[in-house]
Amino acid sequence: MSTSESKRVAAEKPRGFIDRLGDAAAAEQRVVAAVGAVYERWGFEQLETSAIEFTEALGKFLPDLDRPNEGVFSFQDDERWLSLRYDLTAPLARFAAEEWNGLAKPFRRWQTGPVWRNEKPGPGRFRQFTQCDADTVGSDNPAADAEMVAMASEALEAVGVPRDGYAFKINSRRILNGVLESIGAKDDRARLTVMRAIDKLDRVGIEGVAALLGKGRKDESGDFTPGADLDAAGVKTVVDFVTLETTSRASVIEGLERLLGASEEGRAGLKELRGIDAVLNGLKVSDAQARFDPSVVRGLEYYTGAVFEAELTMTVVEDGRPVRFGSVGGGGRYDDLIARFTGERVPATGFSIGVSRLVAAQARLGLGEAFAQTPPVIVLALDAARMGDYFAIASELRAAGIRAETYLGSSGMKAQLKYADKRNAPIAVIQGGNELEKGVVTLKDLRLGAKIAANLGEDREAYARMREQVQQEVPRGEVVAAVQRMLAAKL
Amino acid sequence: MSTSESKRVAAEKPRGFIDRLGDAAAAEQRVVAAVGAVYERWGFEQLETSAIEFTEALGKFLPDLDRPNEGVFSFQDDERWLSLRYDLTAPLARFAAEEWNGLAKPFRRWQTGPVWRNEKPGPGRFRQFTQCDADTVGSDNPAADAEMVAMASEALEAVGVPRDGYAFKINSRRILNGVLESIGAKDDRARLTVMRAIDKLDRVGIEGVAALLGKGRKDESGDFTPGADLDAAGVKTVVDFVTLETTSRASVIEGLERLLGASEEGRAGLKELRGIDAVLNGLKVSDAQARFDPSVVRGLEYYTGAVFEAELTMTVVEDGRPVRFGSVGGGGRYDDLIARFTGERVPATGFSIGVSRLVAAQARLGLGEAFAQTPPVIVLALDAARMGDYFAIASELRAAGIRAETYLGSSGMKAQLKYADKRNAPIAVIQGGNELEKGVVTLKDLRLGAKIAANLGEDREAYARMREQVQQEVPRGEVVAAVQRMLAAKL
Repeated sequence: MSTSESKRVAAEKPRGFIDRLGDAAAAEQRVVAAVGAVYERWGFEQLETSAIEFTEALGKFLPDLDRPNEGVFSFQDDERWLSLRYDLTAPLARFAAEEWNGLAKPFRRWQTGPVWRNEKPGPGRFRQFTQCDADTVGSDNPAADAEMVAMASEALEAVGVPRDGYAFKINSRRILNGVLESIGAKDDRARLTVMRAIDKLDRVGIEGVAALLGKGRKDESGDFTPGADLDAAGVKTVVDFVTLETTSRASVIEGLERLLGASEEGRAGLKELRGIDAVLNGLKVSDAQARFDPSVVRGLEYYTGAVFEAELTMTVVEDGRPVRFGSVGGGGRYDDLIARFTGERVPATGFSIGVSRLVAAQARLGLGEAFAQTPPVIVLALDAARMGDYFAIASELRAAGIRAETYLGSSGMKAQLKYADKRNAPIAVIQGGNELEKGVVTLKDLRLGAKIAANLGEDREAYARMREQVQQEVPRGEVVAAVQRMLAAKL
Repeated sequence: MSTSESKRVAAEKPRGFIDRLGDAAAAEQRVVAAVGAVYERWGFEQLETSAIEFTEALGKFLPDLDRPNEGVFSFQDDERWLSLRYDLTAPLARFAAEEWNGLAKPFRRWQTGPVWRNEKPGPGRFRQFTQCDADTVGSDNPAADAEMVAMASEALEAVGVPRDGYAFKINSRRILNGVLESIGAKDDRARLTVMRAIDKLDRVGIEGVAALLGKGRKDESGDFTPGADLDAAGVKTVVDFVTLETTSRASVIEGLERLLGASEEGRAGLKELRGIDAVLNGLKVSDAQARFDPSVVRGLEYYTGAVFEAELTMTVVEDGRPVRFGSVGGGGRYDDLIARFTGERVPATGFSIGVSRLVAAQARLGLGEAFAQTPPVIVLALDAARMGDYFAIASELRAAGIRAETYLGSSGMKAQLKYADKRNAPIAVIQGGNELEKGVVTLKDLRLGAKIAANLGEDREAYARMREQVQQEVPRGEVVAAVQRMLAAKL
């Protein structure tokens, strides 16, 4: 295809997709590397599956579908439907079922990569984003659930979140089911209405939840949401349940003992929480780091036991008001997902970190600075015939571990310095004809220059007087040492 | 969706896609991290773009299309066609054009990620694979081309390829065009036939190329391929050209001086090579590492100047015969690709490493061992009521930097040790009731056990005598130190 004559193509990307350059791109990979290193240390094996799966293998577990093709990107191939994965759990289920016989079981794996949602894009809502998941397949031991929480908390700390800056909330679907059983809400529909009511606690408060459990609730705009129509005793049980004192895991267990009554399902859930508590204690995970919270529901329908949510409790200032950063991950036990393939129940539990959310949190909370890439030293290229010499200087700097590049354009000195500024370069290395004759190079301290310029404002004369601080002439053979000194200097 | 009652779904993935577990998955990321670290040090900024682009933005630059939808996975969205990217260059061109005004120019970026080809899968030929690219946009300086080669050679060394284990071959399309001009092959079709003939040098030898440049060639099966129909002088020029002595870059430049005659295009190409040579010399890249090779053509139509290929020259034994590993990357100058969007020529050059090929090379050449993950120490779980204790032991080991996990199943000791074997665990940590009473743990050296078992064959009695070497009882408080000693012991 001859390019120059063809009609011009618009340089644009589809809505809901973004480009990331420099630190923004590197930050995700650094977060994933730090999290992955923790997961590896805990004995998890990395798994990589392809982006494309049979649509049928992915199933239909996406919440809140508002698009005709049900939230996934799909296309036909050889008369079968293929889709881009919408999470990393469905591909794991397919993989575990496909490779079951050859796997060491229980099977622990971690995985990272992009997932796609064919949803209406909105502010901060993208159609491709990165997840980082850990899952254990083949164990119904609550220790496996506790491990998820303890390991994920170590992962948060590995990316810079302080120990008092996050909290995991843990619940069990079985406990919830036990409560629902004890109040006589037995069919799926009644249960769903109650769960939805509980899930709205953060938004509507406990009064609102009580209304939604009873006859229904009218919101500020006058819209009426019909309720679950529980009787007064039922409403009280559920309200008592979601408002249990959660300061210690032991106190929640104690409270649940009282509330659950004889429900077998509830007893099983309580045993689950006891098992989780024992391992969290063994791992010295405090009540502040991980607490039992009966109000945690989580939307995905496939959870069957323990559910977890990770929240950053540190606040950021937004529009002048302090705001909690909120959720950065979640997970739970899904004992039925792999049965779609195998026909047999395979217990499994997992945790998924929203990498983009965590990167955003790092940036917003100022946690990511230690991770940020340093800008390069720029070697100017003032004589086209001497590119080899300029590259040799940059090469010496790199050999000493200093990020360094040679200017590659054809512009003059002024434009090259402007380029260096745009790159946030700390230093420009200059060797024009004069310097070459004298066997020296000039180092220009661009950080110091910017600082002086900022402080002096428009006083060009004063700036000129201080130029000698900004520019240093050093022998060619000492360029590496001199750059190291300049980089190490405090401004 | 209720899962247990629905009909079973096949646990399978579409053809041409693969799963990678453990080291196989980690190896790709380690290679990319090592290569990326080199590119960062050279001042390249990481770019991440989404997998999905407008089909129109990707263009049609795929070679060898044998499928109706032209080699890409495409789907319609909001009445526009979207496609999965098939390389990282097309998205870069779109990005550079879209963000041109805001970029520091020349713009250096590196990028990694999966790309997709909707082609017939075959052995070793996948429909998703990882690329790792570096490109410089906005510089027509041959130094930018030289930088690609020097930087990519440093990247190969960063993943363990020794300096004498690879070779870059460099050519320029302009030189080739100059030769074609000098022999009167002026239209695109004649040029293409000549280029195709040259490209077959490896397969058909120089006689075969000569035949394909003249009347044509009959292969062993009797099939006849019509030739470029050059006259004898033309054939001789091209044959002399592709068989130029390539031991030193200087000798190639000298030889081309003679062959190119007055062709303006050829002269421009020669100037390009001289510029590349100067920078490679400045960077101390030897003739053995990077040589000029007039027979390098490269298939992609969009190259307009310098072209590069990276080859591993180390041999691997295949079916009893030593075989060169071959190509692990390539690239070149493509000055017209961004013009599709901007309407104006934007010079650009780049290099792409085939990550999967490089990982395969690492494994096959035994280069990857230093990168391999160590298997975890396994803490057995012999008493369901004591999971917290077992997790505490694993936690202490991890705190000392040792990869460690607690068994999560419900099986007995024998099955747990089998699990540990399957995981290639070096050590099993055991604390049953007896050990607990005595305040000790038993460490089982599984590597030593396997070694003794292998050497003793079926002599179970001798094996029993050596058990004491394999099993050590240590005080609970000394478990970390004892594991460290056992891991450090030479077998």
